[in-house]
Amino acid sequence: MSAISAAPLPDPAHTRWVDEAVARVDEALAAAIPPRGAGGLTEVMAYASLQGGKRLRPLLVLAACEALGGSRPAALRAAVAVELIHAYSLVHDDLPCMDDDVLRRGQPTTHVVHGEAMAMLAGDAMQALAFEVLTPETGIAPALQARWVACLARAAGHAGMAGGQAIDLMHVGKSLDLAGLEHMHALKTGCLLQASVAMGAMAGDADSSGQHQLASCVDQPVWPHLMDYGRWLGLAFQVVDDILDVTQDSSTLGKTAGKDEASNKPTFVSLMGLAAAQAYALDIHARALAALDACHLPLPGARPLRDLAHQVVSRSH
Amino acid sequence: MSAISAAPLPDPAHTRWVDEAVARVDEALAAAIPPRGAGGLTEVMAYASLQGGKRLRPLLVLAACEALGGSRPAALRAAVAVELIHAYSLVHDDLPCMDDDVLRRGQPTTHVVHGEAMAMLAGDAMQALAFEVLTPETGIAPALQARWVACLARAAGHAGMAGGQAIDLMHVGKSLDLAGLEHMHALKTGCLLQASVAMGAMAGDADSSGQHQLASCVDQPVWPHLMDYGRWLGLAFQVVDDILDVTQDSSTLGKTAGKDEASNKPTFVSLMGLAAAQAYALDIHARALAALDACHLPLPGARPLRDLAHQVVSRSH
Repeated sequence: MSAISAAPLPDPAHTRWVDEAVARVDEALAAAIPPRGAGGLTEVMAYASLQGGKRLRPLLVLAACEALGGSRPAALRAAVAVELIHAYSLVHDDLPCMDDDVLRRGQPTTHVVHGEAMAMLAGDAMQALAFEVLTPETGIAPALQARWVACLARAAGHAGMAGGQAIDLMHVGKSLDLAGLEHMHALKTGCLLQASVAMGAMAGDADSSGQHQLASCVDQPVWPHLMDYGRWLGLAFQVVDDILDVTQDSSTLGKTAGKDEASNKPTFVSLMGLAAAQAYALDIHARALAALDACHLPLPGARPLRDLAHQVVSRSH
Repeated sequence: MSAISAAPLPDPAHTRWVDEAVARVDEALAAAIPPRGAGGLTEVMAYASLQGGKRLRPLLVLAACEALGGSRPAALRAAVAVELIHAYSLVHDDLPCMDDDVLRRGQPTTHVVHGEAMAMLAGDAMQALAFEVLTPETGIAPALQARWVACLARAAGHAGMAGGQAIDLMHVGKSLDLAGLEHMHALKTGCLLQASVAMGAMAGDADSSGQHQLASCVDQPVWPHLMDYGRWLGLAFQVVDDILDVTQDSSTLGKTAGKDEASNKPTFVSLMGLAAAQAYALDIHARALAALDACHLPLPGARPLRDLAHQVVSRSH
């Protein structure tokens, strides 16, 4: 059952696109993580990265690249990098000193299997690997590498993901109004989702030699609309996450359900009520689509971005 | 008292160079950490980064840049970035799930003051900030930015610092021979010290437009010798660290003395004995200087690199 009954149904062509893209991402991720020695750090990194998952961020990278008419090989590096950042954040977030969670993607969390110290180090090494993946010696224009790194580092750091997690941490058991909640989530999850769109678009618009093309992408009229799309999609993702936390069970989610209420965290559902949160998710979804329409991107290249917005509100886990 | 009685005395001109360089680094570090909100993540990042410290890695960056005839403003970004990586690693290393240490640079460790969760998040955000600092929109050639990021990410990750920490963790209470110990330290501390030299040299050899100059630096005959210097200096640093752990008290070190023996960690002193470890440190110091001589770098630009090698073996904390 999806989070919202009025949400659009998944399109079969999109399902095929997703399946094929996820397979490519998983292959590239596995190749990016160096050969595993038993009991070593890279084995822990592999455990934390290769257990499946929705791969929403890499899909956004690839979809944005295709929407701008780019080719996939360059964008795959950015896709792997954003997923490594996301996966490391889950490892650290699940640690006992943070959310203390034992279940993730239907499997025991990394520290449960490999111990807290190795889990923390693996997360640290995954963040470093993300930036290493973005900066190969050849094949990607240095200007694109530098812009990717700047974009991802900002989205992952104090003004993005880590900063949002800190705000989250400081508000357990405290009240937060809707604006405060949206700000927290904009940082905690929104920045990395938006960066995924941005990095894919940068790849789509740059050729292998190309500073000029890159600059033109960010300066084009399409850019602010594309960033709006990323922001609304990020917000929709989080509202739906809060809805799923109260409407689904742990086995469907692959993680512990009902955590938010149990830990007394403010959520869109606790602030608005379930029905209003569902209506809000649909409203934000419509805004994401409107922002995408304003980009005037040619079809069929732009279709995956549109379908991913559908997927975010219609998902069941 | 210095670690090794036969070590060269500090040169007054070098002391002045160090004092001036440390002041510039501290200023740049403070500027890189965004404005602090009370109780927020950036306050924790500042606590973890701005408590002083030897700043050896930033000094190596600046010294290598000067040795190659470069100017300081570009190198300062690299200096700040390596120090942020080093400082974050200390925060994570001190956490209860790792070394569980309460004293660092004479102050309570970050998690003692700000809690474990905020300490971990601050470390994560400091790593991201390091890469953000390396990739400004203007002022540094994109090719240099990309090479810096690749170099730092590799040195910080699974094949460098984090990988060395994992090996260290897996060998507490276990035996490790000299080759194994050197490999562990080469990763844990050596890679980042060597990367500091490399990043400074890259900055010294690149002008603001410059891919050609950068490529020439890495391809020049000087490069392998400079990397040898970095490797020997890193090893000397660690041997001296192990010596200081048994010869100095906590107040001199600014961190808990005698930790290695108490936690049954293999060290150069436990494997070789104190006198042999001291002789070994001087031997490695001589090798670092020989590697530097082989670079045939012009004086006075190359002097700080030479003096930093002296400083590493003659330090008392």
